Amino acid sequence: MNTTFKLLISGRILTKSGLVHNFKYSSTAWPFVKDTYINDFKVIDYSKKYDYSKSTHAFHCMVYARMNEQTFTIQRPRGCVLMQMRFDGYLGFPGGLVDPGEDAIHGLNRELEEEMNLDLTKHKVTEKDFIFSQHSSSRNLTLHFYALETTLPELEKIEARVQLAKDYGSEVLGIVRVPLYTMRDGFRGFPAFLTHAFIGSAREQLLHTLQHLKLLTPEEISDALAAKPHKG
Amino acid sequence: MNTTFKLLISGRILTKSGLVHNFKYSSTAWPFVKDTYINDFKVIDYSKKYDYSKSTHAFHCMVYARMNEQTFTIQRPRGCVLMQMRFDGYLGFPGGLVDPGEDAIHGLNRELEEEMNLDLTKHKVTEKDFIFSQHSSSRNLTLHFYALETTLPELEKIEARVQLAKDYGSEVLGIVRVPLYTMRDGFRGFPAFLTHAFIGSAREQLLHTLQHLKLLTPEEISDALAAKPHKG
Repeated sequence: MNTTFKLLISGRILTKSGLVHNFKYSSTAWPFVKDTYINDFKVIDYSKKYDYSKSTHAFHCMVYARMNEQTFTIQRPRGCVLMQMRFDGYLGFPGGLVDPGEDAIHGLNRELEEEMNLDLTKHKVTEKDFIFSQHSSSRNLTLHFYALETTLPELEKIEARVQLAKDYGSEVLGIVRVPLYTMRDGFRGFPAFLTHAFIGSAREQLLHTLQHLKLLTPEEISDALAAKPHKG
Repeated sequence: MNTTFKLLISGRILTKSGLVHNFKYSSTAWPFVKDTYINDFKVIDYSKKYDYSKSTHAFHCMVYARMNEQTFTIQRPRGCVLMQMRFDGYLGFPGGLVDPGEDAIHGLNRELEEEMNLDLTKHKVTEKDFIFSQHSSSRNLTLHFYALETTLPELEKIEARVQLAKDYGSEVLGIVRVPLYTMRDGFRGFPAFLTHAFIGSAREQLLHTLQHLKLLTPEEISDALAAKPHKG
């Protein structure tokens, strides 16, 4: 395994319930290696899945559409990405813990239905949507991240259904689009968005997935992280 | 004027266009005095309105409902308050600048229609909804803040219309409810929400207005501002 620019992981996730979930994952865009930490989350190699079998497993998903529209006269985002305001005041992605005895992908889709009112007859996460996983030993928590692609018209229909979700007004306080552009002052837009309060690893899941899906380049992400607000 | 616990201001706002807007405002809840600064915004006494006639005037509004519902099994917020994710990546309230030649309240309602798709035949801001004003000399900007009360069922209808607003997907990237409760760890909920990135004076407008409307007590606001995140 080239540990600098190539990461290939494949294997099976052992869930709390003992069910397994097969996946393959490759990344050439992000210099993640086995011992890379993001906050206290380590990107993990699932060939060693039994190391994590006693931790809690959570599954989250980014719903997104590729686009090339001119927005607000000068912005031209390459995609529309959904996040949510959570009950605890943090921004995050829909998803959550898998119930005992529940298959991982089934659990994730159930959470998307509960939190977003996602129409599972039209949109459903599958293993091909897997992006990457992380483990925090201090939290005894393993996170698995997926990205579900749709079209912009379909994404608008998904947004329109969110308010009728079972968990809207309790677990979910709103849904927002991530501004995937930087405005002319070099800070407003995506860099400003990154200064919000995000739950757990959500900010890093966003950054990694945007790069993995080529919605932003590594340079654009680095620039956004380094940008400082303009005073005055 | 008792400068500690009683503030009474009344007068006329002179807009950029020269039109005037009459208002009265009293607060017994917030120890604002004429020379109180919030960031670089000073709470202003409009009997001296001509001091600000050459500045830009912006009008924003909080749409809210009082409630006493149990949410997420343990939370019991006293109200439901709407904010929006803005195009620039910051959280803020709907509103904006008044157009040349436009009456202030008319301009604010126009902005609410553009940004929230507010049905002005049912909901309309009037001068009785005025809360307070602030001026920043460094920005040459005067901010006027209003709060429009509705019922929770009506607020849900307002939310459901937002996505069809003219500015949705360009100026407005989403609408969220403010978590008006603090969870058992003392930080998640409202204190965590306050750590987000807010535009201009929006965070202070939120805090002042929640207190003014008695949706939160001064003690609850002080506690939320002093709260620290729980580690681990």
